[in-house]
Amino acid sequence: MNRILSSELAGHVGATVRLAGWVHRRRQLKSVAFLILRDRAGLAQVVVGEAARESLADLPEETVVDLTGTAVANPAAPGGVEVVDPTWTVLSGAAEPLPFDVYRPELRAGLPTLLDAAPFALRNARQRAPFELAAAGVAGFRSTLDGLGFTEVHTPKLVGYATESGANVFGVDYFGRKAYLAQSPQFYKQAMVGVFERVYEVGPVFRAEPHDTARHLAEYTSLDAELGFVQDHRDVVRVIREVFAGMIGTMADRAGAALAAADLTLPDVPAELPTVHFADALDLVGRATGEDLTGEQDLAPAHERWLSAWAEREHGSEWLVVEGYPTAKRAFYTHPDPDRPGYSRGFDLLFRGLELISGAQRLHRYADYVDAITARGEDIAPYASYLEFFRHGMPPHGGFAIGLERFVARLTGAANVREVTLFPRDLHRLTP
Amino acid sequence: MNRILSSELAGHVGATVRLAGWVHRRRQLKSVAFLILRDRAGLAQVVVGEAARESLADLPEETVVDLTGTAVANPAAPGGVEVVDPTWTVLSGAAEPLPFDVYRPELRAGLPTLLDAAPFALRNARQRAPFELAAAGVAGFRSTLDGLGFTEVHTPKLVGYATESGANVFGVDYFGRKAYLAQSPQFYKQAMVGVFERVYEVGPVFRAEPHDTARHLAEYTSLDAELGFVQDHRDVVRVIREVFAGMIGTMADRAGAALAAADLTLPDVPAELPTVHFADALDLVGRATGEDLTGEQDLAPAHERWLSAWAEREHGSEWLVVEGYPTAKRAFYTHPDPDRPGYSRGFDLLFRGLELISGAQRLHRYADYVDAITARGEDIAPYASYLEFFRHGMPPHGGFAIGLERFVARLTGAANVREVTLFPRDLHRLTP
Repeated sequence: MNRILSSELAGHVGATVRLAGWVHRRRQLKSVAFLILRDRAGLAQVVVGEAARESLADLPEETVVDLTGTAVANPAAPGGVEVVDPTWTVLSGAAEPLPFDVYRPELRAGLPTLLDAAPFALRNARQRAPFELAAAGVAGFRSTLDGLGFTEVHTPKLVGYATESGANVFGVDYFGRKAYLAQSPQFYKQAMVGVFERVYEVGPVFRAEPHDTARHLAEYTSLDAELGFVQDHRDVVRVIREVFAGMIGTMADRAGAALAAADLTLPDVPAELPTVHFADALDLVGRATGEDLTGEQDLAPAHERWLSAWAEREHGSEWLVVEGYPTAKRAFYTHPDPDRPGYSRGFDLLFRGLELISGAQRLHRYADYVDAITARGEDIAPYASYLEFFRHGMPPHGGFAIGLERFVARLTGAANVREVTLFPRDLHRLTP
Repeated sequence: MNRILSSELAGHVGATVRLAGWVHRRRQLKSVAFLILRDRAGLAQVVVGEAARESLADLPEETVVDLTGTAVANPAAPGGVEVVDPTWTVLSGAAEPLPFDVYRPELRAGLPTLLDAAPFALRNARQRAPFELAAAGVAGFRSTLDGLGFTEVHTPKLVGYATESGANVFGVDYFGRKAYLAQSPQFYKQAMVGVFERVYEVGPVFRAEPHDTARHLAEYTSLDAELGFVQDHRDVVRVIREVFAGMIGTMADRAGAALAAADLTLPDVPAELPTVHFADALDLVGRATGEDLTGEQDLAPAHERWLSAWAEREHGSEWLVVEGYPTAKRAFYTHPDPDRPGYSRGFDLLFRGLELISGAQRLHRYADYVDAITARGEDIAPYASYLEFFRHGMPPHGGFAIGLERFVARLTGAANVREVTLFPRDLHRLTP
């Protein structure tokens, strides 16, 4: 007999059914005993009769069983159906005890314990929910971009130069030479704009962050996109708006159970993301708080929070684009704003008080790159392989990157990004 | 005016249109000059009149232009439409010369030149085709598994132990400690079967292969899947059949232009993959070739080719599953065949004469792991973090991995896997 899922029980009332899953919980009441079975679709209530009752002692929670019984309607049972007269086989031996009870609505353990025991902690619906949201979100990212004519690429994570920022890069012993782990697919996705015009990549990026904070990871999943033939960075912002609408729409479609388990409401994405220039943003904050922000080159976290609250008040939006960041504070490949010297076509997207992603129009002319790098007092030699991309016809282009874990943390309200990372890597953590 | 794509010209006959793209080719005929413009959708023929003719000299091939003109019907033009009376702006300066002409049907350059200049070589439709097929194939992999109830996961590439095989692993300086680049997500995807039952991951894997061959890469894209509650490895094979049908179906749906450019016909996937036991496979080969294969523990490449040809003859299939490989030749986590001592529930899938993927049912009981590791004379200590997964209820499970580049190479007939890798990494190659 084929196994059915717990969610399919209602279609089999009166029939013999075969279920398989984990012993979620045993409940010994005075007159009856229940075995709650968990599978990937949910929970099933199994009524254990007097005769079999004692054998429940051999089925500690999390033991895997294959179970056959009769599905009967019972309005008092979850889903209106329960299984009676069960017989079962244990598939992998009695499960050994865990430092927490998986079946509790919220696990009673600290974060280090939960991370050490991630393969078991995530069996809890609430713990697992962020990962179901992440999977749906990534699917929405891809389908949105596929629909906009983007092509998925896979670029190398082993690179020959520690460009981009130079610092915080992991070194690799590469056949006796030195290689590095890519901090982003930035250069490669730009190169691929010259081939496909519009590209995206979902993959790991690596930062040797010596910071032990709730926001930093040594490895995370980056959702990168880059597109050619833009007028300016606002064409990039328009794609970002579509991407978040698609990600959140797919979460709503596919991850309803996770949303319920985590008790979450998804944010609305306005038809157009409200946008404010960096200079105006500083001005707004300065006037509201009385601070003198003249000459500031970046927004402090408190300013980002204030601006987010302002966007919520003024535009009814949890999202706010701050455009025109000072060129000096952005990566050398950021396109300057030709109409406002000192300001760039780089932007940040704030979401719920925090910078969620950065994006920009990039430089696309070889000579501009040489100028930008030398203006910063850097040598162009390490960039030779990268700069070559721009000598043979590269269109105006721009792009952005979303840190998957950071986004999911903001959505779920997780205080620590590690809560929404399957197996986080940081200064101290390299296992499991 | 908004830009349109070359593929949209037919809908704008008689109208002023704006195109943008690369100068694919200039053709100076006696009475007329043509500029062929390339964008992500294809080619557009632009007729350059007498007055503008000389200015074509400032538009070397691969220069990026933004062009406005009038679309007119002309049955002799590609697609039945051409653009006349053009005016244009150069977007990024005249392109510098490349070591090959992108516009030729086949590029006249050796593989090292093509790889060094990948961002330009791939502008050629035939060179680019494998990557369009790969993107469609990966989309098909995901949508097939999504439809079968799988969940996508992202597991760490930085790991604390060089398990799996021990050899050929890249070391990383991890905050003063030693870490390694994951050779596969094997252990993590198994752990996640305990959470989601069915998982997949698309991501990079790393092999410090000291072999300088046409098949080995130091980094490639692995399509991994793992599923719980299997009866045996044949449940895994059934999923593989669906996955390849989905991958190839999506290539047919989405990558028609690439198939035409590469002059390819996609293989049929039979409703059931023909399957032969390893012992019977040896017997078949031995009887056909007269070789004495008694006691052989693996198939030689020549044997794989013979078996593939046999499957084509006997079953009309380019695919053949060889199941029941000797336990001694498979990874320690492979489930033995309880009915045939010495043989396992591990299998290979042969495709067009070559092993394409390996898969297996895995062990799922803690004690079986301890026995399997100690039977090989290995210490269990380095596996402690992994073995922990199996102490708290793990269902019978199995899975497989597809090397994306290897599969695309077989599909396109590429002699070297580097031809179908954007930026290959090997013993000698770390740039671009």
